[in-house]
Amino acid sequence: MRTALCERLGIELPIVGFTPSEHVAAALSRAGGLGVLGCVRFNDAAELDGVLSWMDDNTDGKPYGVDIVMPAKIPAEGTQVDLTKLIPDAHRSFVAQVLRDLAVPPLPDDTDERAGVLGWLHSVARSHVDVALKHRISLIANALGSPPEDVIDRAHAAGVPVAALAGKGEHAVRHVERGVDLVVAQGYEAGGHTGEIASMVLVPEIVDAVGDRVPVLAAGGIGSGRQVAAALALGAAGVWMGSFWLATEEYRTTMPGSGAMQTALLDATSADTVRTRIYTGKPARLLKTRWTDAWTADDAPQPLPMPLQNLLVSHAHNRIHAADDPTVVSMPVGQIVGRMDRVRPVAEVMAELVRGYEEALARLDKTR
Amino acid sequence: MRTALCERLGIELPIVGFTPSEHVAAALSRAGGLGVLGCVRFNDAAELDGVLSWMDDNTDGKPYGVDIVMPAKIPAEGTQVDLTKLIPDAHRSFVAQVLRDLAVPPLPDDTDERAGVLGWLHSVARSHVDVALKHRISLIANALGSPPEDVIDRAHAAGVPVAALAGKGEHAVRHVERGVDLVVAQGYEAGGHTGEIASMVLVPEIVDAVGDRVPVLAAGGIGSGRQVAAALALGAAGVWMGSFWLATEEYRTTMPGSGAMQTALLDATSADTVRTRIYTGKPARLLKTRWTDAWTADDAPQPLPMPLQNLLVSHAHNRIHAADDPTVVSMPVGQIVGRMDRVRPVAEVMAELVRGYEEALARLDKTR
Repeated sequence: MRTALCERLGIELPIVGFTPSEHVAAALSRAGGLGVLGCVRFNDAAELDGVLSWMDDNTDGKPYGVDIVMPAKIPAEGTQVDLTKLIPDAHRSFVAQVLRDLAVPPLPDDTDERAGVLGWLHSVARSHVDVALKHRISLIANALGSPPEDVIDRAHAAGVPVAALAGKGEHAVRHVERGVDLVVAQGYEAGGHTGEIASMVLVPEIVDAVGDRVPVLAAGGIGSGRQVAAALALGAAGVWMGSFWLATEEYRTTMPGSGAMQTALLDATSADTVRTRIYTGKPARLLKTRWTDAWTADDAPQPLPMPLQNLLVSHAHNRIHAADDPTVVSMPVGQIVGRMDRVRPVAEVMAELVRGYEEALARLDKTR
Repeated sequence: MRTALCERLGIELPIVGFTPSEHVAAALSRAGGLGVLGCVRFNDAAELDGVLSWMDDNTDGKPYGVDIVMPAKIPAEGTQVDLTKLIPDAHRSFVAQVLRDLAVPPLPDDTDERAGVLGWLHSVARSHVDVALKHRISLIANALGSPPEDVIDRAHAAGVPVAALAGKGEHAVRHVERGVDLVVAQGYEAGGHTGEIASMVLVPEIVDAVGDRVPVLAAGGIGSGRQVAAALALGAAGVWMGSFWLATEEYRTTMPGSGAMQTALLDATSADTVRTRIYTGKPARLLKTRWTDAWTADDAPQPLPMPLQNLLVSHAHNRIHAADDPTVVSMPVGQIVGRMDRVRPVAEVMAELVRGYEEALARLDKTR
């Protein structure tokens, strides 16, 4: 399973794994892929700095990357308090009522609540870039469009390639024109922010659109070696997987209290996701639960634009997380959730991807 | 590009092509695939009989199949006039107003208008089965769920295998339990009736669900050899392609006046489709045009259930077809429409699929 991407990034397997967990990311890199740490959960740059130092020490000297959310069009300045004033009262009342209806308990009085949305702001994202470039990172990815020009320039000055997600051919071309080194073709079936064009159509379309200029990673619907083989058959130089690492042992190490979430994921079929704007304000695929159902009721308000929607629901997310109820999870995940049937170590998932890939190629050999 | 499906159906390439055009179907079979003629457009059994006799004589003795629409739950009896009474006046007025707004002219007074929906009725579908079994068909497919038990029994008694479309693993298992011989895994990106699970996830899921019991064809998003290779990597025994044949020279031979439709298809990108209930009452993917846009207006009514919606719009479809305006086409097509860039003979498309498949396998070879 070697492609040109392996040379480019100094990795053994063309499998890039996005995860908010440093334990998952490190295990991915140690297993021969590229672990990419999602930074949006770090509101405090010093905390991210500490975690990246841990990554430096726990990846056996192998490459790893970071994912920083840098949307093109959100308020660049303004504190959280200012933005909060833009949220209509009716939206707040709706969320409060839904939490009551779903019997999600309030947080204990002594909870030190996370502030939620700060990682989405330009100022915070830039502090992530500052911190990340002090560590031996091998990739900066942006989960929302092209990174800002100055970020691309600084990454390149440090010899770090930049990746960006694209859901359409024209987005991919724009990324390349702006200097992006790696395009992630994110299909409809993917978890999190996603467009409407499915991987089977999108991946070769983006491969053709960018030509030889940059390698393309296929994202969306990948959780087996057969699917890696399909992605490479479509012309991708590798795969970008996010959802599948949620059902790993290492994820729980970083994210205590994710038992209910993992239970919900193991129980879900591929039909149990929904693409909705309720998580961030932009269409994102989430696990379908009583929480997502509540937003489809006749009296439910329209979700707010980014970043207000995430601000609106961030306290609810904290309560939902603490409630530990598999039926009221709020979690981005792709349709590949139907293939998650047990919680395993990252290295075991990687080994199975390789095995399944080789079996798929052996099967294709027989067609000649 | 040989799989077990080739032995099973007596074909050279595991490419099954669904098309309402006998000229396309015959060309597909002559080129080594299996042409499957969609019968829903034949309200008159004698007309179908004549067309199948033509197929017998124009396929060089090679196998071909038929596709008959046999929904499980629609009024089995009742004439078209009875059903027509169930259509609300508000829906009729809306359709009439949209046609005026879109400047779609009325039909000339002397038009011998087709009756539209009859092919969807059980009685008509059964007459199609009667007629088809008199010809040397190699497959009966049902584009809507499992065929009725008596149809399966009669096909098997005649030595003809039966195929059914599935958009979920559980549907595929139900088909197999009812005696279906071949499952078509139809992904979200497909044209016509389609579910929400994309091919990358759906195909291996259905392959695993049915196991060794029956072969699985991948449908949805296939229009290049790379995509055929991806489908086979996912575990499919072959592919089922429908949309792609709309942009062939042979299609125009059967369907005079399809110039505007073909123009619209060539102009469309993969983002220019929409999954909507306006064509038949069930979710189906159509080309996005001013006609589909009209149904998303705030004052547009909800589509009616099958088969009433198709009855409601069948006269509109006739007027739209006659109008020959690429911006007001009503046409089922998948996201692969973005790859349709010129009108070609079927044999040329087939040759390119084979070439692209071999290139994809050669590329995969280099990853070992």
